[in-house]
Amino acid sequence: MNITIERAALLRSLGHVQSVVERRNTIPILSNVLLRASDGELSLAATDMDLEIVETVPASVARAGGTTAPAHTLYDIVRKLPDGSQVELDIGGDGSILTLRSGRSQFKLSCLPVDDFPQLSGGDLKHRFELAASDLRTLIDRTRFAISTEETRYYLNGIYVHAAQAKVGGGAELPVLRAVATDGHRLARVEMPLPDGAASIPGVIVPRKTVGEIRKLIDEAADRIEISLSDNKIRFGFDSVVVTSKLIDGTFPDYERVIPVGNDKVMEVDAKLFAAAVDRVATISTEKSRAVKLSLTRGTLTLSATSPESGSATEELEVNYQEGPLEIGFNSRYLLDITQQIEGEGARFTMADAASPTIIRDVADAAALYVLMPMRV
Amino acid sequence: MNITIERAALLRSLGHVQSVVERRNTIPILSNVLLRASDGELSLAATDMDLEIVETVPASVARAGGTTAPAHTLYDIVRKLPDGSQVELDIGGDGSILTLRSGRSQFKLSCLPVDDFPQLSGGDLKHRFELAASDLRTLIDRTRFAISTEETRYYLNGIYVHAAQAKVGGGAELPVLRAVATDGHRLARVEMPLPDGAASIPGVIVPRKTVGEIRKLIDEAADRIEISLSDNKIRFGFDSVVVTSKLIDGTFPDYERVIPVGNDKVMEVDAKLFAAAVDRVATISTEKSRAVKLSLTRGTLTLSATSPESGSATEELEVNYQEGPLEIGFNSRYLLDITQQIEGEGARFTMADAASPTIIRDVADAAALYVLMPMRV
Repeated sequence: MNITIERAALLRSLGHVQSVVERRNTIPILSNVLLRASDGELSLAATDMDLEIVETVPASVARAGGTTAPAHTLYDIVRKLPDGSQVELDIGGDGSILTLRSGRSQFKLSCLPVDDFPQLSGGDLKHRFELAASDLRTLIDRTRFAISTEETRYYLNGIYVHAAQAKVGGGAELPVLRAVATDGHRLARVEMPLPDGAASIPGVIVPRKTVGEIRKLIDEAADRIEISLSDNKIRFGFDSVVVTSKLIDGTFPDYERVIPVGNDKVMEVDAKLFAAAVDRVATISTEKSRAVKLSLTRGTLTLSATSPESGSATEELEVNYQEGPLEIGFNSRYLLDITQQIEGEGARFTMADAASPTIIRDVADAAALYVLMPMRV
Repeated sequence: MNITIERAALLRSLGHVQSVVERRNTIPILSNVLLRASDGELSLAATDMDLEIVETVPASVARAGGTTAPAHTLYDIVRKLPDGSQVELDIGGDGSILTLRSGRSQFKLSCLPVDDFPQLSGGDLKHRFELAASDLRTLIDRTRFAISTEETRYYLNGIYVHAAQAKVGGGAELPVLRAVATDGHRLARVEMPLPDGAASIPGVIVPRKTVGEIRKLIDEAADRIEISLSDNKIRFGFDSVVVTSKLIDGTFPDYERVIPVGNDKVMEVDAKLFAAAVDRVATISTEKSRAVKLSLTRGTLTLSATSPESGSATEELEVNYQEGPLEIGFNSRYLLDITQQIEGEGARFTMADAASPTIIRDVADAAALYVLMPMRV
């Protein structure tokens, strides 16, 4: 293999693929990026055995071929080369050394054989549909904060994506694509009209690491993203990047049961003012509980927090609330996670009592729904 | 005490003083900031028993008085208040509670008595001189990176400041103020004309934490900074901020002995190109040694690094070097620390051989001098 490529193009692609390479690996080749050159293209691939990313970039290929080289080291070298430089990658002899030349710099990197590199991407992913980049971003942003980090509940360590029937006004039902995440304390659900080709998809749980990598790629992505999936794999096709991931092999709980239907106490509040006040009042709450109390009377919300060490805090807000007095406590971090996702001005809380889950929605956006368990305060 | 003060002014001062408060304290009152109000002024003070910072800000004082309140909590609250708000601080009753009011927020913070707050600033600091803010910044920036972090060599955990006679051209001597730091591997020395009043100062070692706090304050400081010191304390007077610090009670080694006088092999190199090349080549060197080798022949410097795991790197640079071949190794981090301080284009290396200390200087700035021990490579 002998190729020449612009530093900027190589850096961008290496940046994408090295991101899935773990810092420490017991299997040496998982630290490497697979490089393959042919027909005016360089293909780069990296994997952690659960998640694989493959990217193709144009390159001037003098001699086709391939190798695997240390991903983080290669990325660091290319990052440190001067802007605008050309990079030559060359493998000669027995293929055990990759030589990188640029300007008056020369690097020789130890390589491992292409044939030892694990392949994940094979297999037939029969379901296929497209999403706008902005829609995929919404699906992820509205739900990922609620993904559980408890390893024992591995089936909650991702976003559950599935096709469903959503009730709309007048009892009609509409087919939707839904994303759901929960950690048992809060739940986030977002839905959008079901794309063509997604009607018969199985319900799948996309792991957290995959969600993170996809989210990073979306901002640079073209308008449409192609998604294909089977029972145990999902693939995201961006312009020149393909990400293939195993799915979490588990059963997502019946989340519908968690969403209360009889809540009747409605409060509407300016989401930004509410978030700022919660953040201030929570300064006082203990590091461990982060609890804030919401005390509601007609038209007024009083936020408060106390801690044995620090003292106490209260703040009043005008709200739209017409019911009788109610006191309910929440983890302030969870409240802030949710209100950050509310882009409209108003947040609507639909409550039952101090012990029952509360529903929070963006007044201006019916697509997302959040359920939050209260805390005793 | 009852005062009203602009949030921005209070935040700025709390930002300065809370910075010296450690996150964990075995003595509770050291977590607090001392607040004292009188005559249209609020004074804020914090200390860790070695370092004290006192700041005075204008405030509307309705009732004079004082207390001590949790520094980090108070800072966080004020930081989260809306821009442009007014803050009322009130202590009533038995003085055990500070009430902070702003808009519709109210906080009550547990306080500790003013009388229990440790005082550091007393004592007569008989030497007094002034430095331009830019000069103090230079003294710190050119030396602080070389401060030792080894706790056992506590007398190297600071910058040594003293008055000295510097040899200038023609054998004449000039009185200078000098700052020196070393960790045994490298040494940094910078000097400037001795300010009025500093002729008879004792040599003092200013602790690293104090150096860091002072450095942060310089960027907002007025033009002149007043420095006063005794054998065991130093005080920095900024506009409205006074920092008093204990000095390190130890003897700084006779650093002059470390500065070689017979080195005769001179290399001059573009400092920025050199630093970029060292950084690139060092990508390959092992995490532990960070070694790079400099191989010199007439007019050419070849930088190289090898590691058993990664491979090897070389890069050539054009340099001004007229002596015979020389190979010498350095820790790349130390080379980068020094070249970062070189603001002119050229760095001048004066070497003897591969085992002896090398002198590095900024070609455009005679005030600073760096000594670097080589490594075996």
